[in-house]
Amino acid sequence: MTKNIKVNAAILIIGNEILSGRTKDTNTSTLATWLNSIGVKVAEVRVIPDVEKKIVDTLNLLRKENDYVFTSGGIGPTHDDITAESVSKAFGLKYEINKEAFKILEAYYQPGEFNEGRQKMVWMPENAKLILNPTSGAPGFNVENVFCLPGVPSILKSMLGGLKNRIVGGEPILSHTISLKTVESEIANSITQIQDQNKEVEIGSYPFFHAGKLGVSIVIRSEDQSKIDNCNSQILEFVKEKKIEVVDR
Amino acid sequence: MTKNIKVNAAILIIGNEILSGRTKDTNTSTLATWLNSIGVKVAEVRVIPDVEKKIVDTLNLLRKENDYVFTSGGIGPTHDDITAESVSKAFGLKYEINKEAFKILEAYYQPGEFNEGRQKMVWMPENAKLILNPTSGAPGFNVENVFCLPGVPSILKSMLGGLKNRIVGGEPILSHTISLKTVESEIANSITQIQDQNKEVEIGSYPFFHAGKLGVSIVIRSEDQSKIDNCNSQILEFVKEKKIEVVDR
Repeated sequence: MTKNIKVNAAILIIGNEILSGRTKDTNTSTLATWLNSIGVKVAEVRVIPDVEKKIVDTLNLLRKENDYVFTSGGIGPTHDDITAESVSKAFGLKYEINKEAFKILEAYYQPGEFNEGRQKMVWMPENAKLILNPTSGAPGFNVENVFCLPGVPSILKSMLGGLKNRIVGGEPILSHTISLKTVESEIANSITQIQDQNKEVEIGSYPFFHAGKLGVSIVIRSEDQSKIDNCNSQILEFVKEKKIEVVDR
Repeated sequence: MTKNIKVNAAILIIGNEILSGRTKDTNTSTLATWLNSIGVKVAEVRVIPDVEKKIVDTLNLLRKENDYVFTSGGIGPTHDDITAESVSKAFGLKYEINKEAFKILEAYYQPGEFNEGRQKMVWMPENAKLILNPTSGAPGFNVENVFCLPGVPSILKSMLGGLKNRIVGGEPILSHTISLKTVESEIANSITQIQDQNKEVEIGSYPFFHAGKLGVSIVIRSEDQSKIDNCNSQILEFVKEKKIEVVDR
């Protein structure tokens, strides 16, 4: 994969707590923002339960359809943490103690604290590459194009920096936002025309109700800044014509 | 579908803004919490882009695999709102003006305000049943087991009340949470044993770091309160034995 080639990823959130509504997923937004910044477009997100067959089948599909897959959740010490074993099965690899991870956690904990529960966290697919965890010790892991991260948002976030060199992105996906004091239906036709004339940029239209302000944010996305600028000018032109106010968000 | 039968749903979030990381999805949590309360378990969530083929294919798969499918997003007036047309194609139905929706919006807007952009919102699959929108007029719609709702969280939320009579759930899924001042690895083995002895309840273990408190929430879920109570007693027993403090969250 080199520059100018589109690079896609899927995000696989594993955890009953998201499906029950108990926990709001924020890892998708964290991962997607980070991936976009390094030129990887998120093609799809799936949230699935802690069920082995579902994890194995979904992972085997997504890893073939995408350049990268990022999983979140299920790599802790408890009985419902079955991601590492499921990933092993998906790849047909042994599920075994990762010696490097063992050493890291043995050094991380006080003597006597590296108990059986914690030792579960060093069981991984054979030959998995570790993803270091600067927050709480227990590493994530990487097999081929699959990267397995924990579900706790602050820990996941802290692990992304160490991953950057292992992901080869395309051109970063740039974006520009214009926020307008209007409603979508007032600008729908003009934006449709501009999208038709600018097929290589992606224009999104998002109403907002925020801090007493009501309006629409137009988001222009492309790998090419000049195409964004060109599209931006066309939007500002009709905005001026229609006397619509540009606002901060 | 009658009581004591498991009823499943899938949630399909349609929108580039979630995949780019720009917008954090909260509709999954809203829908999942509401569905659980009426006895419908969320089996899977997918987030996909505003791409017709992807919407058609995903919807045709999910509506066969699940009792219900709830979509969110893509039913507004702009060019990137393609859910209604895509749902029509998925079902092989005409995409046409829904007369009832037309009347609702004609009455909702001031004379002259029901313009071409807004009229796009009354185009739906033929014979779609409307889902009324008490917040902003434009209705959602329902075809067979598929329910299409808007992406704006406050509007989506306001439309659920009107839907309740159209969804036949199983027994409501009950849950009980015990929050403990401990770390997961201290309780992992005990919880595993209790899960093994209580196969019909689902026990989840979720670390929390919140308002200066650190701990683990154990969530017990089942349709049967007595099974939850029984499992709860077993947990409180080992918690007492191990002298672990029960805390509020």
